[in-house]
Amino acid sequence: MPAIANPSLLILLHHHHHLRSRRFATALLPQTLLSLLSSSIRAPALRAHSTSSSAQTQPLSTDNARTGRSGSISSPPVQPDIAQKIDINPPKGTRDFPPEDMRLRNWLFNNFKEVSQLYGFEEVDFPVLESEALFIRKAGEEIREQLYCFEDRGNRRVALRPELTPSLARLVIQKGKSVPLPLKWFAVGQCWRYERMTRGRRREHYQWNMDIIGVPDVTAEAELISSIVTFFKRIGITASDVGFKVSSRKVLQEVLRGYSVPDHLFGRVCVIIDKMEKIPIDDIKKELRSAELSEEVIEELLQVLSVKSLEKLEEKLGTVGEALVDLKQLFSLAEKYGYADWIQFDASVVRGIAYYTGIVFEGFDREGKLRAICGGGRYDHLLSTFGGDDIPACGFGFGDAVIVELLKEKGLLPELSPQVENIVCSLDQDLRGAAAAVASILRQKGQSVDLVLENKPLKWVFKRAARINAQRLILVGSAEWQKGMVGVKILTSGEQYEVKVDELE
Amino acid sequence: MPAIANPSLLILLHHHHHLRSRRFATALLPQTLLSLLSSSIRAPALRAHSTSSSAQTQPLSTDNARTGRSGSISSPPVQPDIAQKIDINPPKGTRDFPPEDMRLRNWLFNNFKEVSQLYGFEEVDFPVLESEALFIRKAGEEIREQLYCFEDRGNRRVALRPELTPSLARLVIQKGKSVPLPLKWFAVGQCWRYERMTRGRRREHYQWNMDIIGVPDVTAEAELISSIVTFFKRIGITASDVGFKVSSRKVLQEVLRGYSVPDHLFGRVCVIIDKMEKIPIDDIKKELRSAELSEEVIEELLQVLSVKSLEKLEEKLGTVGEALVDLKQLFSLAEKYGYADWIQFDASVVRGIAYYTGIVFEGFDREGKLRAICGGGRYDHLLSTFGGDDIPACGFGFGDAVIVELLKEKGLLPELSPQVENIVCSLDQDLRGAAAAVASILRQKGQSVDLVLENKPLKWVFKRAARINAQRLILVGSAEWQKGMVGVKILTSGEQYEVKVDELE
Repeated sequence: MPAIANPSLLILLHHHHHLRSRRFATALLPQTLLSLLSSSIRAPALRAHSTSSSAQTQPLSTDNARTGRSGSISSPPVQPDIAQKIDINPPKGTRDFPPEDMRLRNWLFNNFKEVSQLYGFEEVDFPVLESEALFIRKAGEEIREQLYCFEDRGNRRVALRPELTPSLARLVIQKGKSVPLPLKWFAVGQCWRYERMTRGRRREHYQWNMDIIGVPDVTAEAELISSIVTFFKRIGITASDVGFKVSSRKVLQEVLRGYSVPDHLFGRVCVIIDKMEKIPIDDIKKELRSAELSEEVIEELLQVLSVKSLEKLEEKLGTVGEALVDLKQLFSLAEKYGYADWIQFDASVVRGIAYYTGIVFEGFDREGKLRAICGGGRYDHLLSTFGGDDIPACGFGFGDAVIVELLKEKGLLPELSPQVENIVCSLDQDLRGAAAAVASILRQKGQSVDLVLENKPLKWVFKRAARINAQRLILVGSAEWQKGMVGVKILTSGEQYEVKVDELE
Repeated sequence: MPAIANPSLLILLHHHHHLRSRRFATALLPQTLLSLLSSSIRAPALRAHSTSSSAQTQPLSTDNARTGRSGSISSPPVQPDIAQKIDINPPKGTRDFPPEDMRLRNWLFNNFKEVSQLYGFEEVDFPVLESEALFIRKAGEEIREQLYCFEDRGNRRVALRPELTPSLARLVIQKGKSVPLPLKWFAVGQCWRYERMTRGRRREHYQWNMDIIGVPDVTAEAELISSIVTFFKRIGITASDVGFKVSSRKVLQEVLRGYSVPDHLFGRVCVIIDKMEKIPIDDIKKELRSAELSEEVIEELLQVLSVKSLEKLEEKLGTVGEALVDLKQLFSLAEKYGYADWIQFDASVVRGIAYYTGIVFEGFDREGKLRAICGGGRYDHLLSTFGGDDIPACGFGFGDAVIVELLKEKGLLPELSPQVENIVCSLDQDLRGAAAAVASILRQKGQSVDLVLENKPLKWVFKRAARINAQRLILVGSAEWQKGMVGVKILTSGEQYEVKVDELE
């Protein structure tokens, strides 16, 4: 209920110290708040999608920042006991998140979280630093070779976590019988790896995980893939952009058992096979031989891995074992969920992590330009190998790097700009307290306020308003303040008026 | 627009495999979905504040988790190449966040974030791992002694960040003139310290930071304190619970300069004085002597530090220097903001961080039971000592530990329970796909759904519904499904009906 601007309200403004810029020097006095608001400086078009370059012209300069400081005397000493001249870049392979990057990260993480909650999952987290032992497996995984490990000041072997699943398993065991199964947990956490920085890859990334603990049925895997599909759809990715390759490690297991290969070689063989698209086939064969597999088994394995349909797989295996039962059920559920066109059987998918035992899947871009977008599977024995009960489990990891590349590629990166509802500014140094009071009133009403903390020309204020996408400019001038009023300019429409402070909404 | 339950709709249910529990064995067949819903098992009172203990009775046991698995054959091998028997606790001094703790953390962080946004601050973040050099200062700070530092695999000296401010300063310098001042940035990040675990203190905590870069005026400090007060009010903390002790390091500086103590000793002297309440006064004096301060200066310092009012300070200092001008302005602004009753002058507050140069403040509990809740101040020279331009700055850090202790103390910890809108369950294994389809429809409408992924007795389903605070139970039964309908029970009111799937809202 703002008072409509009324010429009779326009009382002279006697404060013109803000009229220092050349542009204002020509303004005639007396002048009112309203006339200031409608002065030749127009707010740049707001809600423009890109940050207006004119808003960037206020430099990171101390000269400007120090204007308006009255009575500034000698500043305190530079202290030589503080670190000198530092490297201004974050450590190799790590990232800063300035506001524009943080907005994107928050947008992405919020989508992760909202989808997880839509599926009834509860959020959890674990320490980024864990005992090294938690991640040490002997299957030759890349993840182990790249462990970001070190000795702490108490001579303990610790590691920055390369993945979240072992910590999750640890917590489930710790919680023991106090938590009712199934657990549906999600997490978004930073993970680390230490590798040579030749490929420009980072040493840290964030990973979204969803895990279902206590469900042996393939309904769990189907639910997980459904949640990823929901995520893709929300951010504009379609089934023609990405797909999931799905298989089951039980396929390989059945082949290996058929040739009486000892079970303890299973994880290692999977890890070797996972490298198929990265290293030459002869090297794969060499590694399989060194895992004591005969030529005959190797040939049979490679043949099975080339199978791309369930019909062919059934032919090849000769029987309908667990692998086929699981896979058929998964594809049938996918139809009911409505994501059948997103998934395809591909026996070559095994994933590079040793602990998977059943269904495995990975998300890929159909143009084939990028690494796997996400991956997951069933790991029914991880908890028991850690010393816990034998509880069935499955989950996936979804990193924050490849998806952003894909969104860029597809032109789907969202335009995210700063959002502040009000910018509040006093026209006089003596009115700073008044401006603070106005800001407080608005904030108590839930309105966000960027309060101008220095004496700045109006031109500067309009630029700042544009940069932060403020919807309203509220000016506190002496004459109006004496009447308990402030000047308001709606920056989107140009509308302006004076209003009683206690009627500000 | 649900179809009102109508006896003519009640078609026989031929699926009774879920009636295995003794309780159900007595149920007469034929039975309808609706009669199942209204069977003797009543949903426990929902929205109860504590987790119903009956909901906890489903144990973390594989026997139960494995029921309903048809055709389950031999499970895959336990793999000896996976790590064996692990320590189920997180590393010393670190925390897991199971769902109940994560809900509290999210609640706290959301309050941090919402307040920061109310004040027009933009979120940023930095690597948790930084070059050790960023944190090395020679002033004898506790923060340096407790640096969680180590050598990485590439023989670089790195540290898990003990605080966020140096990283922020690094990023501001890096951004250089491309960002318009002032910057108003906030962050919520994990920080680390390495100390002996004798006091049960943790080695990591999360810290909320707000910083204003580029404003020399004390309006910036006033705005920061205002934001913390707003935070306290939001979570139920009042001015009779907590207060802020405020001083300025310029007070000490004026005293030291009066005695011609070299400026480079300033940071070190402040760090020594900060320990006043922790170690005996004689040890403080000893340390000050070893910093080459004369007895006369030490006595004068200690006298000034005991001053608790601005009037006394003015008397003591004899002149109105920068310290007094700043402090008077701050107290005057506090009145305008409306938080004058939260703050008090206390010359003994200096804070233990070397880089502060002007106003310093800390939040404390008035009962005096806890450590400082938060602390901050002006650090006008940090950027220039790092090799950047000399840009004025101030900020604060607010940890996640002491505030939670305080909330507990005051009985103000919020009751946060899981929140899922629907629980969807099929009454027959063959209808799992149908249940998945129903879940998909609801989720597409933005409704959260916990989908029951196994065949479970209804008793179990009601217990789970209570545990997750589900508002509706949706049952998919064969006869209804053939008509395109499902059974609905509103768990809060007990109301129940059948409805067409495409009319589910």
